[in-house]
Amino acid sequence: MNTFGQAFKVTTFGESHGEGIGCVIDGVPAGLEVNEEYIQAELNRRKPGQNLYSTPRKEDDKVEIQSGVFNGLSTGTPITLFVKNQNQKSKDYSDVADVFRPSHADFTYFKKYGLRDYRGGGRSSARETVARVASGAVAKKLLSHFDIHVNSGVYAIGGEVAKERDFLHVKQSEIYALDKNKEEIWKNLIQKARKSHDSVGGTAFIKATGLPAGLGEPLYHKLDGQIGAYLMGLNGVKAVEIGDGVHVSERNGSQNNDQMDKNGFLSNHSGGVLGGMSTGDDLDIKVHFKPTPSIFLPQSTCKENGEEVTMKLRGRHDPCIAVRGSVVCEMMINLLLADMLLLNATSKLESLKKIYM
Amino acid sequence: MNTFGQAFKVTTFGESHGEGIGCVIDGVPAGLEVNEEYIQAELNRRKPGQNLYSTPRKEDDKVEIQSGVFNGLSTGTPITLFVKNQNQKSKDYSDVADVFRPSHADFTYFKKYGLRDYRGGGRSSARETVARVASGAVAKKLLSHFDIHVNSGVYAIGGEVAKERDFLHVKQSEIYALDKNKEEIWKNLIQKARKSHDSVGGTAFIKATGLPAGLGEPLYHKLDGQIGAYLMGLNGVKAVEIGDGVHVSERNGSQNNDQMDKNGFLSNHSGGVLGGMSTGDDLDIKVHFKPTPSIFLPQSTCKENGEEVTMKLRGRHDPCIAVRGSVVCEMMINLLLADMLLLNATSKLESLKKIYM
Amino acid sequence: MNTFGQAFKVTTFGESHGEGIGCVIDGVPAGLEVNEEYIQAELNRRKPGQNLYSTPRKEDDKVEIQSGVFNGLSTGTPITLFVKNQNQKSKDYSDVADVFRPSHADFTYFKKYGLRDYRGGGRSSARETVARVASGAVAKKLLSHFDIHVNSGVYAIGGEVAKERDFLHVKQSEIYALDKNKEEIWKNLIQKARKSHDSVGGTAFIKATGLPAGLGEPLYHKLDGQIGAYLMGLNGVKAVEIGDGVHVSERNGSQNNDQMDKNGFLSNHSGGVLGGMSTGDDLDIKVHFKPTPSIFLPQSTCKENGEEVTMKLRGRHDPCIAVRGSVVCEMMINLLLADMLLLNATSKLESLKKIYM
Amino acid sequence: MNTFGQAFKVTTFGESHGEGIGCVIDGVPAGLEVNEEYIQAELNRRKPGQNLYSTPRKEDDKVEIQSGVFNGLSTGTPITLFVKNQNQKSKDYSDVADVFRPSHADFTYFKKYGLRDYRGGGRSSARETVARVASGAVAKKLLSHFDIHVNSGVYAIGGEVAKERDFLHVKQSEIYALDKNKEEIWKNLIQKARKSHDSVGGTAFIKATGLPAGLGEPLYHKLDGQIGAYLMGLNGVKAVEIGDGVHVSERNGSQNNDQMDKNGFLSNHSGGVLGGMSTGDDLDIKVHFKPTPSIFLPQSTCKENGEEVTMKLRGRHDPCIAVRGSVVCEMMINLLLADMLLLNATSKLESLKKIYM
Repeated sequence: MNTFGQAFKVTTFGESHGEGIGCVIDGVPAGLEVNEEYIQAELNRRKPGQNLYSTPRKEDDKVEIQSGVFNGLSTGTPITLFVKNQNQKSKDYSDVADVFRPSHADFTYFKKYGLRDYRGGGRSSARETVARVASGAVAKKLLSHFDIHVNSGVYAIGGEVAKERDFLHVKQSEIYALDKNKEEIWKNLIQKARKSHDSVGGTAFIKATGLPAGLGEPLYHKLDGQIGAYLMGLNGVKAVEIGDGVHVSERNGSQNNDQMDKNGFLSNHSGGVLGGMSTGDDLDIKVHFKPTPSIFLPQSTCKENGEEVTMKLRGRHDPCIAVRGSVVCEMMINLLLADMLLLNATSKLESLKKIYM
Repeated sequence: MNTFGQAFKVTTFGESHGEGIGCVIDGVPAGLEVNEEYIQAELNRRKPGQNLYSTPRKEDDKVEIQSGVFNGLSTGTPITLFVKNQNQKSKDYSDVADVFRPSHADFTYFKKYGLRDYRGGGRSSARETVARVASGAVAKKLLSHFDIHVNSGVYAIGGEVAKERDFLHVKQSEIYALDKNKEEIWKNLIQKARKSHDSVGGTAFIKATGLPAGLGEPLYHKLDGQIGAYLMGLNGVKAVEIGDGVHVSERNGSQNNDQMDKNGFLSNHSGGVLGGMSTGDDLDIKVHFKPTPSIFLPQSTCKENGEEVTMKLRGRHDPCIAVRGSVVCEMMINLLLADMLLLNATSKLESLKKIYM
Repeated sequence: MNTFGQAFKVTTFGESHGEGIGCVIDGVPAGLEVNEEYIQAELNRRKPGQNLYSTPRKEDDKVEIQSGVFNGLSTGTPITLFVKNQNQKSKDYSDVADVFRPSHADFTYFKKYGLRDYRGGGRSSARETVARVASGAVAKKLLSHFDIHVNSGVYAIGGEVAKERDFLHVKQSEIYALDKNKEEIWKNLIQKARKSHDSVGGTAFIKATGLPAGLGEPLYHKLDGQIGAYLMGLNGVKAVEIGDGVHVSERNGSQNNDQMDKNGFLSNHSGGVLGGMSTGDDLDIKVHFKPTPSIFLPQSTCKENGEEVTMKLRGRHDPCIAVRGSVVCEMMINLLLADMLLLNATSKLESLKKIYM
Repeated sequence: MNTFGQAFKVTTFGESHGEGIGCVIDGVPAGLEVNEEYIQAELNRRKPGQNLYSTPRKEDDKVEIQSGVFNGLSTGTPITLFVKNQNQKSKDYSDVADVFRPSHADFTYFKKYGLRDYRGGGRSSARETVARVASGAVAKKLLSHFDIHVNSGVYAIGGEVAKERDFLHVKQSEIYALDKNKEEIWKNLIQKARKSHDSVGGTAFIKATGLPAGLGEPLYHKLDGQIGAYLMGLNGVKAVEIGDGVHVSERNGSQNNDQMDKNGFLSNHSGGVLGGMSTGDDLDIKVHFKPTPSIFLPQSTCKENGEEVTMKLRGRHDPCIAVRGSVVCEMMINLLLADMLLLNATSKLESLKKIYM
């Protein structure tokens, strides 16, 4: 269960404090330009330690292509990307080796497997998203050939919600802010959380443009169903909304329906998905991240042996995972759309004939 | 892509106005009690035409077991359940044969496949959920052997949100209301929508109890990720929340973390999932349904040939899909937990030894 | 595990003496001509009771399309085919209800599941191949659009091996004989087996023509690997050979290599597969069937409770399963090639561009 | 399509002359002893360059565990094994860069993907079996906990067939010979082939003992069907036989049936599989390998541009791939049985209860 995707398949491996984090990408069509520089540039967007608003832990994530590329092009064989772990401080974790950190995966891993790699959360560490971003970069490259583009940014922090969605501003914002008028407020909320040894929640917004209509495989691999799968399973995500999201439950049909004229839809309440397939309109998604569970205040918890303890975490952590999380969400949508693009290739007999005849 | 589940697998088939709707359930352990009466009772909870608050269209959904059961017990071979279609009025659809009903799947199906069965939405009809409920009943029976129970109810309609969650009241409520103090308000909202030829949105709440800790398969078949997949793909669902859902993005970690003592968690903000696995605490989920897109007011849309038209739908439809939708959500969670229970069986070498030695 | 195929997926269900046998075909591109008459014609080739050389048991296998077809064309949704059981004589089996018929699946089903549907072997009955042939007919129709054709015939019976492979003769032969000079010998061997209450083994030969080079997905969904999977799992098959088969182990490379000139391969020892992919040359396969295990001579065996008994089977059975088995093999290869054709559609970036741009 | 297995899943990656060869093993229950020394010992059995009868090409295959193991035990997360490539001489291939080596995968890869990594066959190289053997070692360790053991050896070379099957002798034989009386003959056949710049075919025999009855998942993941899939896709395999194999087609049912008494089967013509499931008797398999296609005699072939050429291969190759191939077959059966053992864990409700209650 460490593989996702049906046609553009990604298998990931690795732990926070093991040799490294890697992924095997299977199903990349032959002939796609893949190189380390390009992937590295995307990885750098997720890299921690770049400013005051993320963890001070520096991870010098250097990606290496281990297979599947020859003379700069994908060969059709599995592409393996590997990022060696560096700068891990396993000692940081020695005093929590047998303690369940509150709202972390420690307890559930222990219950499921009977043993666990406690160093940095092992496999449950958010460091695993390195593999999602690296493979997402390859998906992004594939989509670029079809003029499909995915963008992301921070939409809310600590209950302060963006009023505008400016993806150009994101590129120059240290916290990937979608609304430049909120940027200072958000930065202050993050700093306030950090200084009080606490953390703060936030929301990412993702938009995909240029989709052809009809991507998504009914009934159980629908575009919206898989958006749910791809995003709800990210560390810390507790809610996902498509289009108008939770607000659709408050409305009448006459307010919520997207009427059409010959040029397309007159509104986009649906967020670009109807019947589980892309409408051709923009895909709009909101993803709600909980505050980082790693806080430095005293908390009550238990040890593996049942003993009650009060713990105070140490270490280096992001005060707001929604910031770097927005990049991960964007890359997950790239991966999903690449999968859907490939799956849709055989939806019509006519499409097959274009290839073979 | 008409199969879901990894170990408890369901393949469904059928269209709104074809021969019927059916499912093949693969992976049911041998020795489980399965009979038509039991499944029928669950199906009846989803059946339309039972009162003023759902469609007046009567569907006398009679389930038939076509394979996989011998002498009242599952044999380990695929269990096929079939419900013949009756009382379809295909003529109702003759005048919308080439028109895209707003916010329906007509446009996307046409774009994907180049042709479509326009009668009642064909495969995209909510009638397909018959198969989900029928197979869900088998999952529910399996879970009952392990004291795992899933309940559901209506949590909000038209923006009026429940203050209490009384699953006992649901059983006696025509609209599966979780809050008896809201029941009249909700009924009025539904009737008002119906009388104005409109529809109204709503929210379902689902709770599962009795889960062992550790269900869910990291990293890409996590319990929360699959909750996303199982529910976000239901017709009309635009948002899914687990535990405190969208509100986690507004909080600090010190407010949101679930601390523990030796008896377990002191709070359940996480909604019963940490690290993608069940914590053993209650699984709490909210599902937001849009208002039924089938309304009887004039709307602008297009034909397959691009011609602009104003259409007024006819037919018989639920004014609020969240009501019967809540039963479907409940059954999807039964199906998901059955899958997770089977998948988890081999998580430890020690478990395997219990079986084979 | 009742589904096979990755892109052209077939899920089957049903038992020998239950309601019927059916299949759900998922992944058929929209726009393919599918009708009952066409499928029925293929089913009739497998139908028993047509002459002296198969079981006298008449199975009037009438196929019904239950979903996925509208106005004579596939819609892209799952196609369900169902064949009702008729003329079952469950009473024939009452005296073997708790006895393991030698070399049947009775013992293994009982061991795996702890209970079993003993009537006619339940799900393990060769009657299940109805579903393979019915779905194979749809695959065959798809392949015909690309000039890919699969033929089959009987190649050996009781150790008497064909000298020629005349697929035209197969069409007029009651026993699908590939060699008209062997036909009488083979018929005599079958009659001799039948009259002595025994059975006889045989070999089928399958040839596919018109394949483009490159079908097959390395490394673990290779064309040859999947030929192994699709055929070795048929009831009674104990060996599969591709190209020169077992004889390659006796040779030198200089004898066995297929050299090339600009028009293609100068020989076809490989049987049309190199590196797990089609070479474009004919695909040549031999499939060895054991003699029917249902014989009417006294045999030693056990009951479920361990009691030793001597049993004499009654009932109506094929004396040589290779005859009708050859049709099943042919259809399995149709199904496999349809799957491979779809999977190969996205092997190159260039192919994707043909579809989307 | 670079993943195999349903519950014990292996994804492999890497090319002959790239960074290395690796695999990700998913589904290993937590708590299994895994270490590099153990895996290395198994890898060494497949290692080339150890004597006169294999390629003089030395591959110092050192395995490294990159993830999934903590304190010597599997953690339930994916186990990654990596073997760096060394001693590749890419220059050996520069003069065949655009030539299709006869009976190699060059032509089919080029046709499928439009481009290829020509160095040593790239991904199609038999070097890929490093990953199969490394992952097979982990499967073997798992099976050892349940007293299931798989052995292999060379059964025939150049048409000279073993008369006995002595697995103890295999361990001390340079060519893994099952019959010590044939060893010299076989060695001479190999040397003769080598000296005449040719190669020779051979047959491997594999036996698994200690299987519980009931392993194998009907109908499309049967034990025999998957033996077909796992072995027929190995480089150079053109035929697979189970039990009496091709000979069953020559016999009468009364000769071929396996009768029983209360202690089990009185014969094992079936080779340990009935109805697609293990009988509990020994699993017996024969695998026929073609002679190595890499020979050093002049051969006719084509270039990518269609030009006809006569080529003479250079390089270092095994004269008989069946020798080291026998180890690979053995490991593939270990992998398959581990998969089947896990899949079978949920066949009965009663088994589930043993785990959860």
